[in-house]
Amino acid sequence: MPQHHAIRDTNIYGEIKLFGGTACPELAASVADYLKLPLSGRDVIHFPNDNLFVRLHNSVRGQDVYVIQTTSTPVHQNLMELLIMLQTLRLDSAGRVTAVVPYLCYARSDKKDKPRVPITARLVADMIEIAGADRYITLDLHAGQIQGFFSIPGDVISAFHLLTAYILKKIPELKDPVVVAADLGFAKKGRNFAANIDASIAFIEKRRGGKDDQPEALTLIGDVKGRDVIIVDDEVNTGSSVAEGFQLVKSQGAQNVFLVFVHPVFSGQATERLSRLDFTEIITTDTVPIPEAKRRLIQDKLTVLPIAPLLAEVILRAHAGRSVGEMFDE
Amino acid sequence: MPQHHAIRDTNIYGEIKLFGGTACPELAASVADYLKLPLSGRDVIHFPNDNLFVRLHNSVRGQDVYVIQTTSTPVHQNLMELLIMLQTLRLDSAGRVTAVVPYLCYARSDKKDKPRVPITARLVADMIEIAGADRYITLDLHAGQIQGFFSIPGDVISAFHLLTAYILKKIPELKDPVVVAADLGFAKKGRNFAANIDASIAFIEKRRGGKDDQPEALTLIGDVKGRDVIIVDDEVNTGSSVAEGFQLVKSQGAQNVFLVFVHPVFSGQATERLSRLDFTEIITTDTVPIPEAKRRLIQDKLTVLPIAPLLAEVILRAHAGRSVGEMFDE
Amino acid sequence: MPQHHAIRDTNIYGEIKLFGGTACPELAASVADYLKLPLSGRDVIHFPNDNLFVRLHNSVRGQDVYVIQTTSTPVHQNLMELLIMLQTLRLDSAGRVTAVVPYLCYARSDKKDKPRVPITARLVADMIEIAGADRYITLDLHAGQIQGFFSIPGDVISAFHLLTAYILKKIPELKDPVVVAADLGFAKKGRNFAANIDASIAFIEKRRGGKDDQPEALTLIGDVKGRDVIIVDDEVNTGSSVAEGFQLVKSQGAQNVFLVFVHPVFSGQATERLSRLDFTEIITTDTVPIPEAKRRLIQDKLTVLPIAPLLAEVILRAHAGRSVGEMFDE
Amino acid sequence: MPQHHAIRDTNIYGEIKLFGGTACPELAASVADYLKLPLSGRDVIHFPNDNLFVRLHNSVRGQDVYVIQTTSTPVHQNLMELLIMLQTLRLDSAGRVTAVVPYLCYARSDKKDKPRVPITARLVADMIEIAGADRYITLDLHAGQIQGFFSIPGDVISAFHLLTAYILKKIPELKDPVVVAADLGFAKKGRNFAANIDASIAFIEKRRGGKDDQPEALTLIGDVKGRDVIIVDDEVNTGSSVAEGFQLVKSQGAQNVFLVFVHPVFSGQATERLSRLDFTEIITTDTVPIPEAKRRLIQDKLTVLPIAPLLAEVILRAHAGRSVGEMFDE
Amino acid sequence: MPQHHAIRDTNIYGEIKLFGGTACPELAASVADYLKLPLSGRDVIHFPNDNLFVRLHNSVRGQDVYVIQTTSTPVHQNLMELLIMLQTLRLDSAGRVTAVVPYLCYARSDKKDKPRVPITARLVADMIEIAGADRYITLDLHAGQIQGFFSIPGDVISAFHLLTAYILKKIPELKDPVVVAADLGFAKKGRNFAANIDASIAFIEKRRGGKDDQPEALTLIGDVKGRDVIIVDDEVNTGSSVAEGFQLVKSQGAQNVFLVFVHPVFSGQATERLSRLDFTEIITTDTVPIPEAKRRLIQDKLTVLPIAPLLAEVILRAHAGRSVGEMFDE
Amino acid sequence: MPQHHAIRDTNIYGEIKLFGGTACPELAASVADYLKLPLSGRDVIHFPNDNLFVRLHNSVRGQDVYVIQTTSTPVHQNLMELLIMLQTLRLDSAGRVTAVVPYLCYARSDKKDKPRVPITARLVADMIEIAGADRYITLDLHAGQIQGFFSIPGDVISAFHLLTAYILKKIPELKDPVVVAADLGFAKKGRNFAANIDASIAFIEKRRGGKDDQPEALTLIGDVKGRDVIIVDDEVNTGSSVAEGFQLVKSQGAQNVFLVFVHPVFSGQATERLSRLDFTEIITTDTVPIPEAKRRLIQDKLTVLPIAPLLAEVILRAHAGRSVGEMFDE
Repeated sequence: MPQHHAIRDTNIYGEIKLFGGTACPELAASVADYLKLPLSGRDVIHFPNDNLFVRLHNSVRGQDVYVIQTTSTPVHQNLMELLIMLQTLRLDSAGRVTAVVPYLCYARSDKKDKPRVPITARLVADMIEIAGADRYITLDLHAGQIQGFFSIPGDVISAFHLLTAYILKKIPELKDPVVVAADLGFAKKGRNFAANIDASIAFIEKRRGGKDDQPEALTLIGDVKGRDVIIVDDEVNTGSSVAEGFQLVKSQGAQNVFLVFVHPVFSGQATERLSRLDFTEIITTDTVPIPEAKRRLIQDKLTVLPIAPLLAEVILRAHAGRSVGEMFDE
Repeated sequence: MPQHHAIRDTNIYGEIKLFGGTACPELAASVADYLKLPLSGRDVIHFPNDNLFVRLHNSVRGQDVYVIQTTSTPVHQNLMELLIMLQTLRLDSAGRVTAVVPYLCYARSDKKDKPRVPITARLVADMIEIAGADRYITLDLHAGQIQGFFSIPGDVISAFHLLTAYILKKIPELKDPVVVAADLGFAKKGRNFAANIDASIAFIEKRRGGKDDQPEALTLIGDVKGRDVIIVDDEVNTGSSVAEGFQLVKSQGAQNVFLVFVHPVFSGQATERLSRLDFTEIITTDTVPIPEAKRRLIQDKLTVLPIAPLLAEVILRAHAGRSVGEMFDE
Repeated sequence: MPQHHAIRDTNIYGEIKLFGGTACPELAASVADYLKLPLSGRDVIHFPNDNLFVRLHNSVRGQDVYVIQTTSTPVHQNLMELLIMLQTLRLDSAGRVTAVVPYLCYARSDKKDKPRVPITARLVADMIEIAGADRYITLDLHAGQIQGFFSIPGDVISAFHLLTAYILKKIPELKDPVVVAADLGFAKKGRNFAANIDASIAFIEKRRGGKDDQPEALTLIGDVKGRDVIIVDDEVNTGSSVAEGFQLVKSQGAQNVFLVFVHPVFSGQATERLSRLDFTEIITTDTVPIPEAKRRLIQDKLTVLPIAPLLAEVILRAHAGRSVGEMFDE
Repeated sequence: MPQHHAIRDTNIYGEIKLFGGTACPELAASVADYLKLPLSGRDVIHFPNDNLFVRLHNSVRGQDVYVIQTTSTPVHQNLMELLIMLQTLRLDSAGRVTAVVPYLCYARSDKKDKPRVPITARLVADMIEIAGADRYITLDLHAGQIQGFFSIPGDVISAFHLLTAYILKKIPELKDPVVVAADLGFAKKGRNFAANIDASIAFIEKRRGGKDDQPEALTLIGDVKGRDVIIVDDEVNTGSSVAEGFQLVKSQGAQNVFLVFVHPVFSGQATERLSRLDFTEIITTDTVPIPEAKRRLIQDKLTVLPIAPLLAEVILRAHAGRSVGEMFDE
Repeated sequence: MPQHHAIRDTNIYGEIKLFGGTACPELAASVADYLKLPLSGRDVIHFPNDNLFVRLHNSVRGQDVYVIQTTSTPVHQNLMELLIMLQTLRLDSAGRVTAVVPYLCYARSDKKDKPRVPITARLVADMIEIAGADRYITLDLHAGQIQGFFSIPGDVISAFHLLTAYILKKIPELKDPVVVAADLGFAKKGRNFAANIDASIAFIEKRRGGKDDQPEALTLIGDVKGRDVIIVDDEVNTGSSVAEGFQLVKSQGAQNVFLVFVHPVFSGQATERLSRLDFTEIITTDTVPIPEAKRRLIQDKLTVLPIAPLLAEVILRAHAGRSVGEMFDE
Repeated sequence: MPQHHAIRDTNIYGEIKLFGGTACPELAASVADYLKLPLSGRDVIHFPNDNLFVRLHNSVRGQDVYVIQTTSTPVHQNLMELLIMLQTLRLDSAGRVTAVVPYLCYARSDKKDKPRVPITARLVADMIEIAGADRYITLDLHAGQIQGFFSIPGDVISAFHLLTAYILKKIPELKDPVVVAADLGFAKKGRNFAANIDASIAFIEKRRGGKDDQPEALTLIGDVKGRDVIIVDDEVNTGSSVAEGFQLVKSQGAQNVFLVFVHPVFSGQATERLSRLDFTEIITTDTVPIPEAKRRLIQDKLTVLPIAPLLAEVILRAHAGRSVGEMFDE
């Protein structure tokens, strides 16, 4: 997987320049370190009237610029900051502007599954384009189809390469491991994960009661009895789904239960909820920064795999005009 | 579900006009009958140089036009015919143009699941827009997210309302019925179907061998023994997946096996393949016309539910400015 | 000025439908009352992950829809809510969608007065268009040129008609009144205001010190001695400019000091600051809702003129295809 | 005319990459040979459901890509293959993508000469742009105005340079040669051709009978008696026009009759028809591949001038940023 | 041909409103008379700095507006006036805006027939669209393909219907009449004209000398001896081509010579040149106003057929949503 | 301020190429001299029918092209010439095209300050973009917001740097100098100018009479008695405003009066008017060429500061990808 190459400036898109927004400063710094490049200076001012203002310290004319900004809470402020940075770079005649958004907000609002609702992910894609991005880089979209919402090209990479590699090292210690997809929408990706670690798979089916006051019914389809279980999903939001999943697999006789997912969104009481369950290990990445207060509650079982090397390598290849796919033998 | 209303011309978009392409003339005629409207006259000429030419018999200035054209085989000719009709209508100053495409081609090319491949469904959406459609109507997209590929609004309706209603009438005769999703990508929709008929669900997991020369491994996750099975999917293409599924559930002790799907694409040897299996009933719709030669092979067990009433009602509501969602109590 | 007419439905754009966002519910309700129309039902859900979700209760197909949402604090959430509502309405095939934004955020970021900064007002205009607005209605843009940032047509109306009418009634009691423009960028509009009430005008010039650590110098250009002063501006944000202006005119011998402006943004300690000064009256409108806690501090001298009648009349005329300009004898 | 230069990579648009579609593989290979470059690898898969799928073997990030694909029969499949390749290249972040389309389909549907018909050539241009072409290269459009249908720049080159050069060598042997324009729409280009070989010109006028059942009347305007005749046109489709022209000039006393045209579309019975006439020589190019079965019928009198050197030189100059016009002393 | 119908307001596009620019006020007034509608009031001010300013007297919200402005000399001022009017109407929220441009400027710059030149007709089309026209109406484009330069629909009508009808009445008096196309680019349209009046046709071939200092050579192809000749073209610009044609046909024994064309552009010394030649009659239309000074020189032989009835009828049908094609039995 | 650097070709946008239009040939030549580059050859032909035609002498494929064309009188012809050149360059596949427009026409039509009027500056921006400019360079827009009318990036530079530097040298000789803003719309920029030369400021307030037949009333706000006055504005058009201002400050006891402005538009009787007033010096630039006949009238007091060094330096930096802002210590 990601290997570091010397930066070879091709002149096609000018020099590489990295900017970080205020949403994930550690990640931006880490990518810069990995690339042995400084983060370019910019002021981001938050005025009393809740308006944001951006000023770049130096000109980016004709340069190949990457803005690293995740769109986690506060979602709308982080998104707007990204958009304003993109516009500022475009108006300053950047050669090429790439939005690097480790976690893309609103990715779950990706279709009209009932009438009279939005497809907000398409709106977000439109906004990123209209603001001035020439390309985008993101990780593990909730649905791969969201790539088709963009007219501009992009690199949608997967942190499951990291998660799989991590789990594979543990496999010898696990007892007859079985992967459990926390949501039927994740069934296919769950199967891929299971196949990559050569484990079998089971599914959790959630079914709404026929009447509004009836409780949801959860069914486990597949077999976990006496086995070590790896629950997988793309993100953990409030944690209630994985908590239910945990209890279901435990009630069916699971032994150790691992929780594996890319985006630690951790909304509301998510970490409290997780801390009350007896997970063996919770394995995720840093596409979303985890505030210290939340992290503390689960830190004894939490493993956060850094995505900076992956992002750095993708940026490098995008800049140099080399294949990103071949990073993953694709 | 669909109830017929008298046509109330709102004058917002002009008078309603129906055009049919050459891909599904029976369906177009049937929609027109249902609406008690004539199909508007048009010539579609196929020249010796394989070019198509369209001429409308009468002006459509300021009218609310619906073009009914499915995009089954020959896919590219049918698609181009649709596009040329859309452009012709737009250039003739139609008030509003709606592409009615019961089966939208290329819907399975909806994401880049490996590098350096197209997202052809987005290309098709772009083409329909650039040709001049103001809106579109289609049925059961392979992925709901494809709606987000369009910038124009549309109505994506589901024929599963018809299929569910049909199956529900059979339920009393079935033995402990279980729904089997033929593909993990259909897991969530399969669950919904099962919930609507109050049956349990099982899944077929297909896993590629670790090496290229290894065979795919199929696993049934869930229980079908001694039960009547309803295999569901959105479309049947070559039929090889559902054939494998049939054999798998049979090998696990299934009794009667029903096959339910919306789009009878029936490519290559699909109907031969189906005819050799002992399905109890094959239930589909007429979003794609089934040529007589193919139909003959499976006609004793084939049930085709007509979508014309559904389409007609949606057209009527779209024209009159009434809710389509409320047709389905949504 | 605004006179109420019976609603005469022209059928050009379908029936009128009013939606209110969550930013200014009282204003939306008041506009609806004035029009004798209900607000259309919609759910706006704020999820734990800070994402917003909108669902319309009824179809808006072919209807003439107006969404009333101001973009005050929390600016980005209110803006995004507006955009999501616009997209939802467009995807639901509304006949025409008008964004009614009494206070348009980011209007002060309207030019690049130094290098490497954004023109965020243009970005906001682009976002409103891409989300799906066909038209917009707003009040007293910081710079009239912002109309040129939109490609779509709009009605930019002025609440100064209301403010002028209110002041005119007081004029007989005032002593040799003089209008003071709080900012040189407001000089021309200040002159217009002064001309409309037949008063003379003076200007506050603010000049930065030559070095960064030098204080700003304020100069009053014109004469206020022994006279009643009306300080005017388009908005009051933190209140520090008008506070300085107050002290300057007082130090030059002003008698009563009135403060007149359209948008009560009141950021940070604005109302505290105003409450500590001996203004005779503070006159504004309700383009931005003033939270009770802020209002309490200045309520004895605060007059808020309602804009609902104005907005309602503009909406009515926009719907019926009648001139908005003639409301103001233009 | 075309002279070969060493490839000088300018770095402006990245490295040159050539792709060939499946419509004219020999031509693509020949262009590659001439440029001493390999054709880049790609899979084009034609699925049983008539859908096409493309996969590039290697990344084209930041490269200057040329896709060589003619749009002869099967027109719609070849066109769609071109469009899918263009989109794939764009989504793979190619630096610049040029569609090289030796024969552009639908070029005769270039105007509305009666009401309620399409301008399909504009639709094709729009499709090529929306799919992702930054530029296009084509030969001898039916009408030069079609260049104006594209928003993107392009090189429309003429193979008449080749045809003229070929004929000029024969001129000494010809008897008082006269050029005959096969169609009045080709009158001006016919005149140019005649001027370039210093021959006089005559025209065939075709006039429809006043009533539908009356035959068309053909008139030769100009003099061919006892002279060698060169019938010219841009393309030969079914061959019926040139067959009529042949008989007309023969009936008026023409001696040898040559047939010269750029695009050997040869639809339906075209080559049979030509084979039955006593043409002295039929001279064309390879913008459209001639299937062996058709070629065999006229091979004794058929001369096909290769366009690969011309295309190769244009690609080279487009890549290197040198003038294409100066190839032709323009 | 054009028959007058009572105006039936359909409400689809609002009420019909007519505006005239300053380029052809008589024509605009005449169209208005024919429609029994007033011209809507507007100020067009030409400032000392050569800037134009437009103000509409009344609101056009939701109305169906037609702007009649030809683009003859001064071309750029007339074009800009048209564009400013279009934008003003759009920004005033007109329901639909149609540019009625009897003579479209720059139509002869319609292709790149040599390298490094513009396609200005496409630029003009783009400008009309970006300014805000929803549709256009024009007469006898130099090349029909220019319709394909517009993305918006339009009605390109032909005044040859008028010219043909006029000539047909004269035919009985003419001696063996022959139509002569003044330019080979007009060959096909010349043939159509000849066919419509059942006359034969001849062509004037103009050929540049091989060297720059050689004179052009003119050749008549076809027979005019002792016959009455009708020279036809789409426009007369400087008149030098038709003057040469006149002399050529006279030198070949023509009797009476008629000159028939749509657009009396009459640049420079055109009317002086025509006045010195012994034309029997010069027949044109009023798509371009002929200044009195020019008209006087040829008035004894000049017949100007009014296009107002034709334009009025097209506007009426476009407004009412009725076929324009059927006016001409198409 | 502007310092000359050796041209360092970055290859990002190809080689630099300069073109001049016919509106300001001396300025274009001067910029070229400063850059030690030739002006590229082009023909601009003005045909008898008032159409313009452009032909480039050499190919600009892949080059970084700058077109220098001001848009002074004749405004529409100069503007159209600019647009045609931009389109020609784009269609010739230029690498990047920058419109260099020292004086941008219609900049005063930048907002709808009354209903039913255009925003022509936005129309001009749209036209420049649609014609093919990738960037623009201009000086001292009437309102900075006009930058927001463009979607493309641009450099709006200020000649006030030159004017300020010139005045600063005179300051020691001036008596208690005061800056007078000729128009309230220029108040803020006037203040900046005054601050830069450390002078105080006064304003001229113009107020319309209450009735149409009443004269405008001019008031000077601020103090000029016995002081040297510098009247500043962005442009002088007919000169009537500055003439009134001159008389007003003189009547209030001003001593020497200087007139400083960027754009010498000098419409109508402007120079006659100025010549009759006793200005000490009139200081401007050459963004608009001053015809000899006009210049002669005021030449004894006229100082024209050349902008070519400034433009040359901006072009150089834009080409080389270096900051333009840092030229002005920004």
